[in-house]
Amino acid sequence: MRVKTIEYVNNCMRILDQTRLPEKEVYLELNKVEEIHEAIYKLRVRGAPAIGVAAALGAAVCILKEDSADKTVLYKRLLCICEKIASSRPTAVNLFWALDRIRKIAQESLDSSEIGIKESVLKEALLILEEDEIVCQRIGEEAVKLIKDGDSILTHCNAGSLATAGIGTALAGVYIAHRAGKKIKVFSCETRPLLQGSRLTCWELMQEGISVTLICDNVAPLLMRDGKVDLIITGADRIAANGDTANKVGTYSHSQMARIHSIPFYIAAPVSTIDLSLDSGDKIPIEERFSEEVTCGFGKRTAPEKIDVYSPSFDVTPFSFISGIITEAGIARPPYAKSLPEMVAKAKEWIKF
Amino acid sequence: MRVKTIEYVNNCMRILDQTRLPEKEVYLELNKVEEIHEAIYKLRVRGAPAIGVAAALGAAVCILKEDSADKTVLYKRLLCICEKIASSRPTAVNLFWALDRIRKIAQESLDSSEIGIKESVLKEALLILEEDEIVCQRIGEEAVKLIKDGDSILTHCNAGSLATAGIGTALAGVYIAHRAGKKIKVFSCETRPLLQGSRLTCWELMQEGISVTLICDNVAPLLMRDGKVDLIITGADRIAANGDTANKVGTYSHSQMARIHSIPFYIAAPVSTIDLSLDSGDKIPIEERFSEEVTCGFGKRTAPEKIDVYSPSFDVTPFSFISGIITEAGIARPPYAKSLPEMVAKAKEWIKF
Repeated sequence: MRVKTIEYVNNCMRILDQTRLPEKEVYLELNKVEEIHEAIYKLRVRGAPAIGVAAALGAAVCILKEDSADKTVLYKRLLCICEKIASSRPTAVNLFWALDRIRKIAQESLDSSEIGIKESVLKEALLILEEDEIVCQRIGEEAVKLIKDGDSILTHCNAGSLATAGIGTALAGVYIAHRAGKKIKVFSCETRPLLQGSRLTCWELMQEGISVTLICDNVAPLLMRDGKVDLIITGADRIAANGDTANKVGTYSHSQMARIHSIPFYIAAPVSTIDLSLDSGDKIPIEERFSEEVTCGFGKRTAPEKIDVYSPSFDVTPFSFISGIITEAGIARPPYAKSLPEMVAKAKEWIKF
Repeated sequence: MRVKTIEYVNNCMRILDQTRLPEKEVYLELNKVEEIHEAIYKLRVRGAPAIGVAAALGAAVCILKEDSADKTVLYKRLLCICEKIASSRPTAVNLFWALDRIRKIAQESLDSSEIGIKESVLKEALLILEEDEIVCQRIGEEAVKLIKDGDSILTHCNAGSLATAGIGTALAGVYIAHRAGKKIKVFSCETRPLLQGSRLTCWELMQEGISVTLICDNVAPLLMRDGKVDLIITGADRIAANGDTANKVGTYSHSQMARIHSIPFYIAAPVSTIDLSLDSGDKIPIEERFSEEVTCGFGKRTAPEKIDVYSPSFDVTPFSFISGIITEAGIARPPYAKSLPEMVAKAKEWIKF
């Protein structure tokens, strides 16, 4: 089964509402900027690449239904829409990258008609979506080189089909290995507080018939010590120029434990996740989520009223603990300050930037 | 407020049902062996020292209501009761230690009347309860020496009042420091899957007015890296002769992260938790819990049906990552193979074994 995380249907952006998984497969058709903002903010659509696609396609469907005949008004309206969508989540750089492309194409189309501008914006958004599918496939083709028959792969959060418009980033290699007949096993960390691992990664791997075992996040170090993990691959929300990588909170711990137990630790992400404007991970803004996600996330209050909660959504894994960064342009190896710009340049050659 | 975790009331064992916290304070009066077994197995009463007390007092209240006039029959019945209770949970050694004391006292009382046996057993159980209160106080007096004014202390799971008949083990020093006017702050790891940190540790510290912040387990390494943790203290379920310590799963990770970030990592536990019969932690039996605790623990299913789950309840922290083991007889320091037997001998001097 091919999960359709995000699509363009009926002049709307159609998304699978991931907050309802694994219980229900509910699809939403959105074309209002408040809806798009809410869907990203509330994690109905999530995962850095999917957020990028949703931002671009969301902006496009919003501007499509504007009836202004004045091009300047239309362009200004698009800037407002982009600004609103950009405020939904701070960490994933793909969001800003995708909106930059939308703004740029609109500006470049200002010479054409109002319809021309709308068409250009929609075309660019659909291109971003289509590119994401191709990029995932390419990441998978690189990642699968690291996966041996019989391997057990540990992953954190969800960087699969549900996090992209394609076969995922961290899970792309898993899908390709499985389809090629390699016998593999995945350990999915549940990923507190929002359980993207248990709700989403387990669900999508089971749809494909891939062997997956769910663990609580704090069981991962035990598995590593017991020699049950051959390889760790996670996604990324933003990668600084030196290779420091922001990803779902818990990733830092896995990277340290991987080093201690001599297990290869890889990041898989499209080149659009690399932010060369930031020297190091210290400068990546880290979103702090609201306390209710920790205290009463699952239909029942599980902590005392008025408890103080600290809930950062991401942490930063230092470059020195990362064995390699798998991109659509190849696997970047240390020193990342050299290899990451090379990947960015290489990716530009074969896909529009 | 002094939490009454476990008491002898109306010829029954009265316990605070910890599965109902923090929502409701429900007390149960138990005097049937099946009830006692269920209460321990289902974690209505939990924490290694409290399990020991509950086992002893549970056996006592069960035998109290037996009406056999034949001493041999009564003694055999007690052995059956102890066997049933011993099968409730495998890891905490305090359970077996307390039941051994009950069996021993019964055997020693076989010369007296049937009533005499019952009285001896009850007296021993109440002595175990009372000793636990004193032991907690002593552990706290040792632990408080490690706590400086302004310290932030991280703990995992619940090793507080709710885990003992006294002021706890890992939290004993926190209570004493707070009562002495030291300004301290606790980070409570929520402790998946059963959330003893958020449900119990947060609750009991808030009752006392101690500053506590709830975090997801995978946020702890981030706090340590950011220099926000001065000291880590956790409880223990069993300590082998070499110092290897079984405690709630996640403890191993904290110990490793503490080492990496140069943070002192202490275990606090009564001497009854030390099992000198085991050379190392490899021999400690680790309880595996059922998958529903991970997949639908919050009143709502949060993972796909039929998902494979691996859920060990404990992990073993190697002695080399432990800065010290705080007991009622003092703080054991490495090498533990030497210091732990000394603690056991010292404890025997001032309390009945």
